[in-house]
Amino acid sequence: MVNGAENQSPHHVAIIGGGFGGLYAAKALGNAPVQVTLIDKRNFHLFQPLLYQVATGTLSPADISSPLRAVLSNNKNTKVLLGEVTDIDPDAQKVILRGEEVTYDTLIVATGVSHHYFGKDEWETLAPGLKTVENALEMRRRIFLAFEAAEKETDPEKRRAWLTFAIVGGGPTGVELAGAIAELAYSTLKKDFRNIDTAETRILLLEGMDRILPPYKPELSAKAAASLKKLGVTVLTKALVTNIENHVLTVKQGEQIEQIPARTILWAAGVKASPMSKVLNQRTGVELDRVGRVIVEPDLSIAGNPNIFVIGDLANLSQDGKPLPGIAPVAMQEGEYVAKLIEQRLAGKPAPPFRYLDFGSLAVIGRNAAVVDLGYVRFTGLLAWLFWVFIHIYYLIEFDNKLIVMIQWGWNYFTRKRGARLITGNESLGIVAVDVNGDYYVPGESKSTVEV
Amino acid sequence: MVNGAENQSPHHVAIIGGGFGGLYAAKALGNAPVQVTLIDKRNFHLFQPLLYQVATGTLSPADISSPLRAVLSNNKNTKVLLGEVTDIDPDAQKVILRGEEVTYDTLIVATGVSHHYFGKDEWETLAPGLKTVENALEMRRRIFLAFEAAEKETDPEKRRAWLTFAIVGGGPTGVELAGAIAELAYSTLKKDFRNIDTAETRILLLEGMDRILPPYKPELSAKAAASLKKLGVTVLTKALVTNIENHVLTVKQGEQIEQIPARTILWAAGVKASPMSKVLNQRTGVELDRVGRVIVEPDLSIAGNPNIFVIGDLANLSQDGKPLPGIAPVAMQEGEYVAKLIEQRLAGKPAPPFRYLDFGSLAVIGRNAAVVDLGYVRFTGLLAWLFWVFIHIYYLIEFDNKLIVMIQWGWNYFTRKRGARLITGNESLGIVAVDVNGDYYVPGESKSTVEV
Repeated sequence: MVNGAENQSPHHVAIIGGGFGGLYAAKALGNAPVQVTLIDKRNFHLFQPLLYQVATGTLSPADISSPLRAVLSNNKNTKVLLGEVTDIDPDAQKVILRGEEVTYDTLIVATGVSHHYFGKDEWETLAPGLKTVENALEMRRRIFLAFEAAEKETDPEKRRAWLTFAIVGGGPTGVELAGAIAELAYSTLKKDFRNIDTAETRILLLEGMDRILPPYKPELSAKAAASLKKLGVTVLTKALVTNIENHVLTVKQGEQIEQIPARTILWAAGVKASPMSKVLNQRTGVELDRVGRVIVEPDLSIAGNPNIFVIGDLANLSQDGKPLPGIAPVAMQEGEYVAKLIEQRLAGKPAPPFRYLDFGSLAVIGRNAAVVDLGYVRFTGLLAWLFWVFIHIYYLIEFDNKLIVMIQWGWNYFTRKRGARLITGNESLGIVAVDVNGDYYVPGESKSTVEV
Repeated sequence: MVNGAENQSPHHVAIIGGGFGGLYAAKALGNAPVQVTLIDKRNFHLFQPLLYQVATGTLSPADISSPLRAVLSNNKNTKVLLGEVTDIDPDAQKVILRGEEVTYDTLIVATGVSHHYFGKDEWETLAPGLKTVENALEMRRRIFLAFEAAEKETDPEKRRAWLTFAIVGGGPTGVELAGAIAELAYSTLKKDFRNIDTAETRILLLEGMDRILPPYKPELSAKAAASLKKLGVTVLTKALVTNIENHVLTVKQGEQIEQIPARTILWAAGVKASPMSKVLNQRTGVELDRVGRVIVEPDLSIAGNPNIFVIGDLANLSQDGKPLPGIAPVAMQEGEYVAKLIEQRLAGKPAPPFRYLDFGSLAVIGRNAAVVDLGYVRFTGLLAWLFWVFIHIYYLIEFDNKLIVMIQWGWNYFTRKRGARLITGNESLGIVAVDVNGDYYVPGESKSTVEV
C-alpha cells in the first residue's frame, strides 16, 4: 500500500519523529500548500525536559505528554501515522515501514538520540537511562522500591547500599534527578518509614569533567554544585565509572579507585544516535559523527540530497565553531526553519542558512533553586526557579493545556507531597516487589528472582 | 525474622490488603492502644471506582492512587509492609510472607476479589478485566491502538472489527466503560483521524441478566439503558458470551446465536475470590461460597477463630436475607466496624453484630448522565452526575488531597479533551504498535507478532 501523495498535486512532506523537531516542523507547515505525514512509533509527543519529574514521583506521564493526533487535529493538511520506519529509499523517494510505504517529496528526519553506555551496553539494565515514559516509570519503580527494601533490611551494610543512589552524568538531567531524589529522601518521605531514617540516604552525582553542567559558564556550575551540596547531594567531578557489577559501582577519580555499593544507579550520560542515522548513511552516504549523528549542511539538508533534512538531536551542525547542543530549543528552531525553507523553495525563493538563536540555558536543582544563563544575564536561586517554572509551563501549554501541571506543582510546592510515587509494572512480567533478602520478585509467581 | 509484637505489651493487629476494607480498618485503629501492621503487595491504595477513567484516558493512575505510607504516616502505631502473604498459621498466630513472618493477636484479611471468566481462564488475555492499574493501562492501550489500527485498515470488514468494542458485563463498571468509550469515539476523537470516521464505532454492552445494573431498581436500569442508547451504545440483555476466538465474540441471546467480529473485548463480569480465601479454608476449615468468598460470622470473624476477620469483597455476609454487594461502602464500613470491635474487646466490652448502612447506589453513564438510588429518593441525569462527582471527590480527598482530579474533570468537562490517552507499555516486552495487517508488534524487534 502506498500512502501519501494520493493525488499528484500537493507537495508531500514526510516527517519521521514527533519530538520537538518533528512536531514543530509539522505545526509550522499547518497552513503551507503541502500535504504532511508525521510518522512516529508512539502516539504522543513527550515533553522530555520534565521526564525526571515522572521518574521521581511528582508528575504522571500524561501530564507531560500530548497525543500527536490531538495536537495536530486542526491541521487539515496533516496526517499522523503510528508506525516504525525501518528503511528509506531516496531514489524512489519512499519511507518504508512495516508492511507499508509512504512516498515523499521532502523528508524530514527527527528521530533523536538514545543513551550511550560507552560500549558497555550490558549496563543498560543495571543503570537505566531517561528517554522514554517507560524509562521514567522504571526509574520511579527502582527509587521507591529501594526505600522499601531498605526498610526491610536488617544488615546495616546492605541497608546502606539500598539507601545509596548514584547518578552518572552531571548534565541538566543528572543535576535535576539528584536534586529531586534529595528532596524525596530528606523531606517527602521523612515520616513514612518506621525502621529506616531516610535522612541517611546518600546521593552521589558523578561527572567525568572537572565540573557539573559543563556547557554552562563556570560560575553557574559552581553555584549549582553549592546548591546541590546544600540539598545533601555529594558531587564527584572528574569521576569516571569503570565498572558496574553486583550492585557495586567502581569509580575512578584521577589515580584513586573507589568501590561504592549502590543498589540504585541511574544513567544520565552519553548520547547515541537513533538507528535512522545508519539508514541515512547507508542509503545516501552522508557522513556521521563519532556518536552516529548526521553531519548536516548549513540549511540542515544532507549532502547530495537537498530534499532530505535532519533536525533535532540527530543532527550535528556547528555554529561559530561550536556544535549546537542537543536541547529542545535547538530542535524547535530547526523544525520551524525547515518548514519555512520548504515554503520558500515552493515559492521559488532562496533561504538563508539556519542560525540558532540562543535564549540561554537553565537547569533546576530543587525546590526554589535553579540556574539560568541568558547570556547577557545569569541568575540563580528562587528567581531562577520561578523563571524555570514559567518557561516550562509556557511551552507545555503550547500543545495542550497543561495548566494542570502548574496546579500540581503549586500543590506539591506547598505540601511537599508527591502523589505519583507508585511502584507499578506489568504484573505478569514486571518487578513490583522486593523480598527480605533484597531480591526483586514478581508477586504471584513461586520464586522468580529477577536480577537487575 | 519475626516482625511485629517485638515488645510484649501492645495487642498487634495485622491487616492483609490496603484496599477500602483494610485501609479503613487501619485508619480507624490509628489512635487505638494497639500496634498495627498493614501488609500489601502494592505500595499504594487504589481508588478502584474510578479505574475506568484511567482505562479510557481521562485520568492518570497517580490521580486515583495514594501511597499507603503517606496515608498512614501520622499513625505512629502503624507500620506498612510491602510484601505478598503466601500462608497463615492460625495456631502460631503468624502470617507468612516470602522470607519473613509477622505474628499477630488479631488478623484482618481484606484481599478482595479478581475477575472470574466462568471457567474460561484463557479469555483473560483476550478480554482483560479492570482491577489493577496495569489492567487499566492495558485496556487504555487496546482501546487507542484499535483506532490506530482502524485508521490503517483498508478492508471495510476488518476496519469494522477494529471499530467494534464489546464490553462483557452490565454492572456499574461495564456501564461506565461503555459510556466513556462512546464519548471518546463520538466526541473526543472525532477530528483526530483522516481515514476513518470514529462516529462509525460500534459499542456493545452485553449483560446476561434481563437488564443492566441488575442490583438497582428496574426503573433506574431502564433510565441507564436509555441514556446509553442516546450516547450510541448498543445494549444487549440476556446475552451470554459463549466463545471468544480469532477476534470473534459468540453471543447467545435466547435461541439466537450471533458471531460478532470485535477486536477490543473488555471484561466487566464475574468475581472470583483472591487466593487468601483458599488459604483460610485450608488452615481454619472456614466455609467458602460458590466463587470462593469466605462465609463470615455476624461480627465478620470466621467460625472458630474469633481473632480472624474477613472484610470487604472477600467476605460473604447476608443481611436481611440478601448478600451484601461487593462495593467500596460495604468494605469501608466493615473495616471501621472491626477496628471498633477490637477496641471494645480490649476494653472487655461486647460488640453488636455488623450492620451495613446503605446510603444508596450510583453509576455514571457519561458526561452529564448518571443514576443515583438513595433508597428514599432516586434520580438520574445531570443532577445525578453532579452528585456522583461530588461523592467521588469527597472520598478521594479523604486520603490525599486529590483536588487535582476535580480540576482535571472540570477541564475535561469543558474541553471534552482527554489528556491521558497514551499508548504505553514496557518497550522491551509490551505491545505498543500495530502494523498494517492489524498485527500487534513490538517496535525495534524484527518481526514478533503478538497474539492478543
